[in-house]
Amino acid sequence: MPRYKLTIEYDGAPFVGWQVQQNGASVQGVLEEAIAAFVGEPVTVKGAGRTDAGVHALGQVAHVDLPRAFDTDTVRDAANAHLRPHPVAVLAAEEAADDFDARFSAVRRHYMYRIVNRRAPLALDEGRAFRVPKALDVPAMHAAAQRLIGKHDFTTFRATECQAQSPEKTLDRLDVDRSGDDVLVTAVARSFLHHQVRSMVGSLVMVGDGHWSGDDLFAALQARDRAACGPVAPPDGLYLVAVEY
Amino acid sequence: MPRYKLTIEYDGAPFVGWQVQQNGASVQGVLEEAIAAFVGEPVTVKGAGRTDAGVHALGQVAHVDLPRAFDTDTVRDAANAHLRPHPVAVLAAEEAADDFDARFSAVRRHYMYRIVNRRAPLALDEGRAFRVPKALDVPAMHAAAQRLIGKHDFTTFRATECQAQSPEKTLDRLDVDRSGDDVLVTAVARSFLHHQVRSMVGSLVMVGDGHWSGDDLFAALQARDRAACGPVAPPDGLYLVAVEY
Repeated sequence: MPRYKLTIEYDGAPFVGWQVQQNGASVQGVLEEAIAAFVGEPVTVKGAGRTDAGVHALGQVAHVDLPRAFDTDTVRDAANAHLRPHPVAVLAAEEAADDFDARFSAVRRHYMYRIVNRRAPLALDEGRAFRVPKALDVPAMHAAAQRLIGKHDFTTFRATECQAQSPEKTLDRLDVDRSGDDVLVTAVARSFLHHQVRSMVGSLVMVGDGHWSGDDLFAALQARDRAACGPVAPPDGLYLVAVEY
Repeated sequence: MPRYKLTIEYDGAPFVGWQVQQNGASVQGVLEEAIAAFVGEPVTVKGAGRTDAGVHALGQVAHVDLPRAFDTDTVRDAANAHLRPHPVAVLAAEEAADDFDARFSAVRRHYMYRIVNRRAPLALDEGRAFRVPKALDVPAMHAAAQRLIGKHDFTTFRATECQAQSPEKTLDRLDVDRSGDDVLVTAVARSFLHHQVRSMVGSLVMVGDGHWSGDDLFAALQARDRAACGPVAPPDGLYLVAVEY
């Protein structure tokens, strides 16, 4: 069974999340249905990141085994034709080695979190960003973020339902930059705990709006206690941007 | 009656356009209703640019006379509260001189047209950009665009229903730039004819996909004939970015 690597964009808003669940449409589910429709039998699509309900992707990666070989452009175009009208698009399909695993072969995941820092509601970006009305001190957020870089026990920034075996992760990059009203948080690591990016962003907003100092953020990390986390930022602003192999 | 200048963002998709019409909701109409709701009497909102159905704004400007003075932050916040759930947001409200006219005082209008140059459908940007599957030669588009700069009779790029007295306009800037799959066209002029930007973009796409040379574009301009225009680009990709006074 030839294996294919898919790069996928989606709007997370109408989905229960990446993973197939009983309670509604999932990105994985609509992809499996679309691909099954053109290959003529059921398939399983395995993704690199199990994004939550409302979380978007610009470059999710998945692998799928097909019953016979297809031209890669055909895989992309046929999947897209059958995905309509779901807001999910296969950007690229490539042949992959039999041992390529979208989840376990990944060496680095890149997330972006988009805050819009303004009073006015979002007319064009409702559901696509997190609006924070109070002026944010972005240099303070960026400086505080640097204290989370490296290998730590991220229990504070981990959902209670997280299934990872260990709360220890190595955070490679956590940058906070302003571009006009946009405040963009870039997070890069081999892997993240459940809700880790949204938990870190919510706590960075506490720094940006003056509720917390950088020391407070670091103390929250060191507490290794979910109760020490700031309010978890909503899924609307989170994008899985790319997965490295 | 104190006059206010409003800067407005909107998603043009659900509207018949900026201007009040009999056949559906307009941006001007929902703004007039929202402001009337908090000032307690009917108002007229006059915009700088009468954007068409489906055309978006990041910085439309309008003026409105209110029956008494309000704090500018109150104007912005009260308008936004009453605009819900329409995808229209007042970004800023400022006091304006009695002779300020959003339309006639404008000295320069800035439009952006967003093309996404890729095969795959738009999952996140459906209705927000124009997808062109065939690879576009952006340097050729930019070079050809420079031949439209300056004062010309733009009859070729003018909707037949355009109500401007003269087809002569002075185009200050028409840049075409690529950023990944995005091809952005920036158009700046004191004013534009009806459908002028979308007509120029549609013709530039003819250059980018190899159907036309730069000479063909210039010949189309010189023809002063609507029939010489390329296919008009859809409203989805057009944004009124800013108005200068």
